[in-house]
This record gives sequence, C-alpha cells and structure tokens, in this order.
Amino acid sequence: MPVSLNSDMGESFGIHSFGNDDALLPLVDAANIACGFHAGDPVGIHQTVAKAAAAGVAVGAHPGLPDAVGFGRREMKLYPEEVRDLVLYQVAALKGYLDAEGVPLRHIKPHGSLYGMVARDSELMNAVCDVAVQYGVPVYGMAGTAHEYVAVERGVGFVAEFYVDLGYRADGSLVIARRPHATPPSLAADRARLALADGLVETDSGKRLPVRFDSICVHSDTPNAVDVATVVRQVINSA
Amino acid sequence: MPVSLNSDMGESFGIHSFGNDDALLPLVDAANIACGFHAGDPVGIHQTVAKAAAAGVAVGAHPGLPDAVGFGRREMKLYPEEVRDLVLYQVAALKGYLDAEGVPLRHIKPHGSLYGMVARDSELMNAVCDVAVQYGVPVYGMAGTAHEYVAVERGVGFVAEFYVDLGYRADGSLVIARRPHATPPSLAADRARLALADGLVETDSGKRLPVRFDSICVHSDTPNAVDVATVVRQVINSA
Amino acid sequence: MPVSLNSDMGESFGIHSFGNDDALLPLVDAANIACGFHAGDPVGIHQTVAKAAAAGVAVGAHPGLPDAVGFGRREMKLYPEEVRDLVLYQVAALKGYLDAEGVPLRHIKPHGSLYGMVARDSELMNAVCDVAVQYGVPVYGMAGTAHEYVAVERGVGFVAEFYVDLGYRADGSLVIARRPHATPPSLAADRARLALADGLVETDSGKRLPVRFDSICVHSDTPNAVDVATVVRQVINSA
Amino acid sequence: MPVSLNSDMGESFGIHSFGNDDALLPLVDAANIACGFHAGDPVGIHQTVAKAAAAGVAVGAHPGLPDAVGFGRREMKLYPEEVRDLVLYQVAALKGYLDAEGVPLRHIKPHGSLYGMVARDSELMNAVCDVAVQYGVPVYGMAGTAHEYVAVERGVGFVAEFYVDLGYRADGSLVIARRPHATPPSLAADRARLALADGLVETDSGKRLPVRFDSICVHSDTPNAVDVATVVRQVINSA
Repeated sequence: MPVSLNSDMGESFGIHSFGNDDALLPLVDAANIACGFHAGDPVGIHQTVAKAAAAGVAVGAHPGLPDAVGFGRREMKLYPEEVRDLVLYQVAALKGYLDAEGVPLRHIKPHGSLYGMVARDSELMNAVCDVAVQYGVPVYGMAGTAHEYVAVERGVGFVAEFYVDLGYRADGSLVIARRPHATPPSLAADRARLALADGLVETDSGKRLPVRFDSICVHSDTPNAVDVATVVRQVINSA
Repeated sequence: MPVSLNSDMGESFGIHSFGNDDALLPLVDAANIACGFHAGDPVGIHQTVAKAAAAGVAVGAHPGLPDAVGFGRREMKLYPEEVRDLVLYQVAALKGYLDAEGVPLRHIKPHGSLYGMVARDSELMNAVCDVAVQYGVPVYGMAGTAHEYVAVERGVGFVAEFYVDLGYRADGSLVIARRPHATPPSLAADRARLALADGLVETDSGKRLPVRFDSICVHSDTPNAVDVATVVRQVINSA
Repeated sequence: MPVSLNSDMGESFGIHSFGNDDALLPLVDAANIACGFHAGDPVGIHQTVAKAAAAGVAVGAHPGLPDAVGFGRREMKLYPEEVRDLVLYQVAALKGYLDAEGVPLRHIKPHGSLYGMVARDSELMNAVCDVAVQYGVPVYGMAGTAHEYVAVERGVGFVAEFYVDLGYRADGSLVIARRPHATPPSLAADRARLALADGLVETDSGKRLPVRFDSICVHSDTPNAVDVATVVRQVINSA
Repeated sequence: MPVSLNSDMGESFGIHSFGNDDALLPLVDAANIACGFHAGDPVGIHQTVAKAAAAGVAVGAHPGLPDAVGFGRREMKLYPEEVRDLVLYQVAALKGYLDAEGVPLRHIKPHGSLYGMVARDSELMNAVCDVAVQYGVPVYGMAGTAHEYVAVERGVGFVAEFYVDLGYRADGSLVIARRPHATPPSLAADRARLALADGLVETDSGKRLPVRFDSICVHSDTPNAVDVATVVRQVINSA
C-alpha cells in the first residue's frame, strides 16, 4: 500500500474559516472532517462533506473535545464513558451528512488534545474503539502508543500517521502547539523524504528516531497549509 | 389505532435534570429524546436512550434550536438550509446511541420554537422533511399546519398531536410559555377526556375548537409531569 | 465635530481571526470590541483591548446575541429583560479588561441582528439604554430609528452612524448580509464622499436618501476591510 | 471574627435550577454567585444578585471553567493568561449586576476544578490574584495550599474554608465528586462541631487532621442543601 496523505478539514466555525479546504481537497487522499465540538457547525460540516464527496476523497470523522474556544487543544479530564459518548455523538452526527451525500464513513481520527489523551490512556482509547467497532472503521493514530496497541487488542483497524508540520520529542511524542505556526514547505518536504526513504524523523534535539506510518498528515489550520500539502504530495508521488 | 402517549425526555443538561424521566418511561408509548442543542449532553442522551430501550418505549428524535440557555424556546431566524442541517446533525447524533443500544429511530419531533417555526413556514418544514425522508420516519406535529400538509406533500408519515399541558388560542395555535408551569392533573384529565370523546379542545377564550390527533403529549419539564402523565394514561386506557 | 471612523473589532474566536485588527487600529478613531457572545473569547478580547489602548483609540462595547455559530446575525426573539441582562453582562465583562488596561469605556454599539432588533423595538432599545445609563456612555446607532428616539427620550448620548460597506433599502434600513462580502474600496470612497458632501446615500434601487451621521463604520470581517478603511480615512481627512 | 457560612449560588442554567437558593439565602452570610461559564445565565445571575442584595448577604464572584456540561468539574489544562482572563471576564460580568443592584463585590471564590487547579499551581493562583488585586477583594480557598501562600505573597486577603459536605483525603485535599451526593445533615453537623470545637476534620481513612478556617461552605447543588445549611447554621450560632 502506498503511503497516503490526509488532512484535518471542515474546521471552520460560522463565518470563520481557515480558507484552505478547497485547495487541499485535490491534493489529499483522506479528509478528517471536524464534527462540531472543537470546530465545525452543521452547515459548514455538511458543505465540507459534500465537497469531499465530489472530490472523491475518503472521509473520516475528526471528533474533538467540547471546547470551541480552545479548538480542542486544551486537555480535559474525562471519564472513559464521556469520551465514548462524545466521540459517538460526533461520529454519528457526521454520518448523517455522509448518508445524505451517499459516501461511506472510512475512519475515525481523534483531534488535538483528545488524540494525545487517548494515545496515553488505554481506557480512553478503548472508549474510542467502542465507536470504531460500532461503525466497523479503523482509527488513525501514532504507532507505538495506546492508539495502536488498544486498536490491535480490540481487532480495530489502525492507520499509523506521520506529521510533517509538528515537532517530535526525543521520546517520539508530538509537540502540539495551541496556535498553528507555519512549517516551511522545504522543511516539510525534507521530513517527508527522510521518513519515506529511511523511516526516520529528526526530533527537536536533533536525534533521529525510527518512525512507522501508513499516512502523512498535513494540518489545514496553518496559513501555508496548501503549500505544505503540495510539496508533500510531490514527495509521496515520487517515492 | 389507539391514541398514544408521548413525552419529551432526556432534557437534562449535565448535572441539571428535571428528574421525571424514570417515572415517565413506564407511562408513555413514545419518548422524544433531546439531541444536545436545546438540552441533552452526550452521556445524558445515551443514558436516556438506554433506559427508553429497556422500557420498550418507541424512541424519536427531539431536535431543537441551538440555544441551551433559552431551552430552544426563543425563536431564531434561520435559513431552510440551516434548519435542515441542524436537524440532520441532531437526529444523526441520536441515531448513534440508538444503534449502540439496538433500537430503531421511530420518529422526529421538532422541539419548542423550532416546532412552532416549522408549523408556520412550509420551507422550513420541507427542510425537516428532508431529514425524515433520509431516515424513513414520520414527523410529529399539529394537524392543519405546515407540519401536516408539507409532510403529506412529501410523502412523509405524520402523527398529529394534542397537548394537555399547553393552552390553545382561538386560532388553534399553541401558547408555548418560556418557563414551564404546572397543569393541574384534573385539568389535564378533563382536556384529554374532551379531546378523546368529542374531538374538542377548549381554547383560552372559552370557545371549543375541533382537534384531530393520534398522540397526546405530556411535557417532562413541569414539576408535576408524572402526575399529569399518570392521569392522562388512565384516561387513554379507559377510552 | 468632525465625522469619526469606527470599526467592529476583536471578533476573533479562539484561533480563528479575520486578521485585520492590527492594520485597522491606526486608521480608526473608535473600536467597538466584541464581548464574547457573537464573537471574542477572554484572551482575545483582552488582547484587543490592550492593542486599542496602545493605539489611543476610543473603545466601545460591541455586545451581540448569544449565537457564535451565527455570528450574532440570526435574529432571536428575546424579552427586554433578556436583552438588558445580556448586554449588561457583556459590557461589564469588557469593562473588566478596560479597567485592567486603564482606559475608559466610551460607548456601546449593539452588534448585528441585535442592532437591527433594537432599531425597530423601543422596548428592547430601552433595555440597551438601561445599560448605557449605568455606565454613562452614548449608544451608536441609526438616525431616525428607535436607536435615536429612545436614546433621546432617556437622556442617553446618541452617535449616528453611516455604513459604507452595507447596502441601504429605499426605507433607509440596512441590508445586513449573513456572510461578509467585499465592498470595492472605490465604491466605499464614493459613498463616503456623497454622504459627507451632500448628506445623501444611494439606495439599492438607485434612489438617493438623506442620511445624517456622526461616524462612519467599516466592518472588520470582510477580506478587504483594511483597504476600505484606508480610503474612507482619506475621504474623511480631506472633507 | 466568628466563623461565617457561605454557599455557592446562582448555579442554574436557563430553566434548569437546583431550587435551593431562595431557602439558603436567609441562612448564609456570603453567597458565591456563578458567573456564566460553569453555570448561570445573564437573567438568572442578575436575579440571584438581586435576591442576595435584598437578603443583605455578602456577594462574591464564583468563576468557573468554560464547561457548562461538566459544571466546571472537569479539569482543563489552561495557561495562566487564560485563567486570568476567564476569571477577569466572569468577575467583571458579575460586577455589572452588582453595580446595577448597588451592592459591592466582596470576594472571589474559584469554582470546582478551577478551585482545585489553583490550589496546586501557584502560577494559576497568581492569575486569580491579578483579578483580586484589580478589585481589591479577598480570595476564598484552602489553608495550606497555593490559595493561601500566593494570596499572602501578593498581599491579597485570604478567607480559609472548611467543607462539611465533601470528604477530605489523608493529605488534607478535598474529594470533589462530579455529581453531587447528599450529605446527611447529622454528619454535616458533627463535622462542623468537630472543626469548630477542636479544629479537626476526620478524613476518609478515619484519621483526624488539623483544619484551619474562617468560613464553612455548603454547596447548593445537593438535594438536601437547605437541611445541611440549617443544621450548620445552628452549630455555628451555638459555638
């Protein structure tokens, strides 16, 4: 299987939008669409689903924490039952638009701090897997974390991701900044090449770590997201 | 078909609850469950669905306006597209819990001001019907309003309702108060008897109007909702 | 008194921003800062207040309807008590940041649909005036509407506005679009010139109406807001 | 100074209410009024302020985390700047109603998880103190935690609290349950007596710890809050 390119999309909020979705859709294989808690409102989500369907992109649910002001990037202490029910609520809501547009749900990818929380806490990842089992879809996540081992335990498909626009710490964990910052496209291309060719990522401290992945993620909330996705698409295509 | 008894439920919000749902479930035939916009949070909605499933009650979606502080009782000027997408979002989200609990979605009943808005505006009712068509379920509403004639036009099932705990105006429209007030159970019983026996309702002005209905609704947000439902259940059973 | 230039600002929401505030601040005399209901979050509001204070711009409160998804542009049916208490809540919250930055509150300007609602309903405008009286500040609004006559009745200062980036109907009322659209800077300049020189505005139908104003408003949520403000500033300065 | 009795109030949300405020007001010395983030809406907060003013009770602000569904009891990872700005927003908003009713702000007491977060993190408590300094009022909190030592460092008044309706751990920290549970009034009375007479609290493990306090808190969100407050008031009065 060739490595795919995925992007978080539909993360507008009313009249506020990052403005990158239309240009990103032709570049990516999969769109993780916000479901209304960290971003996305009913009309905006529906429009994004319709566009992704028209573009023939695989659509996944991108559920987040119930914190629009914090864009789902402020960790919250939640019970597993709360995680399951808020993920189920959001995935099911998105499914309504997918059904309306005649496209299947293809995966679930938790957003922001929820992604980090369920990477570290197997009980919370089990809650996400309850929903993945209900819909028979894989979960996107980080190899070597609870994302992977709980998914494997539960018989849930797992799609390992690599990030070209986030820093990696020496322990392999991601540096998730609250506010987006632009990654120079050349740096993103270098990271993609190193990862694809040698299976390595250079951490913040300069050390290189092995990295295992099926898909590369480009965020849509940075100003130059389209430029980054363009070069990464080229690197994947030439690999 | 005998007249059924339905109640709006799951209208808690976090630790806030009207506290009547458990006692109402054994009394009603159908539960219209709040979907998170005017009331209801993920865990609370899921629990209500599970209880309704255990009680063998028919579950419908009760989508409302995006205004938890106003409990969906403050009219908002919305485009038909907005009504369709916010109803679809909520119905689909509820469907996620129904699927998890193995029970089917049986109907859609708009809540509060949304109910009134779509009774008067056929474009908005068409938006609700888009969702009813998608799920193949009937809509609950008021006979003689856009609820009914748009549903009929669209080939959507229609279940006409009668209210024992709301006043009727001389033109047959409902007096929807923002804050719930208790209806004396004896008054509710009298109204139910008059409607069931003679097909009449006494309006605010004392005039009697013909009323046509398939189901009687009892709200769950009044302090004495359980007493009201108990007497109305008895009246229906003896009819 | 020369005509002033005012702009609605601080209308970001978490990481979402229109991105125009920094460039607009040196161009305007007064900033109407969002207070958290239709837009604005605590950190974002505080930062906008600090920037406006540093720029020496007069700061007013820009309270809106409790509807962030609709950006306060979806009318809601509210009681006068609700309007008073939600305006007071927002104005008082903004005042906290003004006190922290050592600048006075200079005016109140209702936002979006609230602005339109209180222009047409004197009871609602009275509710806004209750808050203006409490803080001893004037209200911005449209001449010839309840904005003006209720303010005058209540002894509240009134600042009449002219809009260069909105259409006017034949009856003098504003065409408030839900989604912002760019006004060509040359058109905005023409409108400003006609209004300043001859006291006239050209309506949608081509008819010219007299217009009376103390301040010109430029919205910050259109992509070319800075260009529009730049030319209008020049027109005002040369007038 | 005699020990006072304080209660968290105004924690309704739209039509949802715990229903205890009216009966609690004559029993307490101080009311900590919710400010709209974890609970409370504009009209409800204003009404609570008016009632507290009429009852002659000292009014404090009770700001919480921006999480109404979680009632502010789900910890969130926040920057000090965010804590300062969300506390300032809420305290200032409440101040608007206090000014309208002619009563002064007397103290600030963070709610729920925010209370616990600032007890453990001196940077966050500094952020709360920034607001206390701005308004010249003391902060309520737990003796021996960052509540106290940061307040002392900053020259902010500090009012130490004792809880009769929460468990204490062996290390003196509070067991804050997400959902309220009723404390038997006799147990609350025993705890109040032991604390007042001997300065001791019995922890979950049965061990007794010294406890230092100026005020006893009774929560208003438990069903029997009024009974608990009644007996504690008697114990305080006889001490």
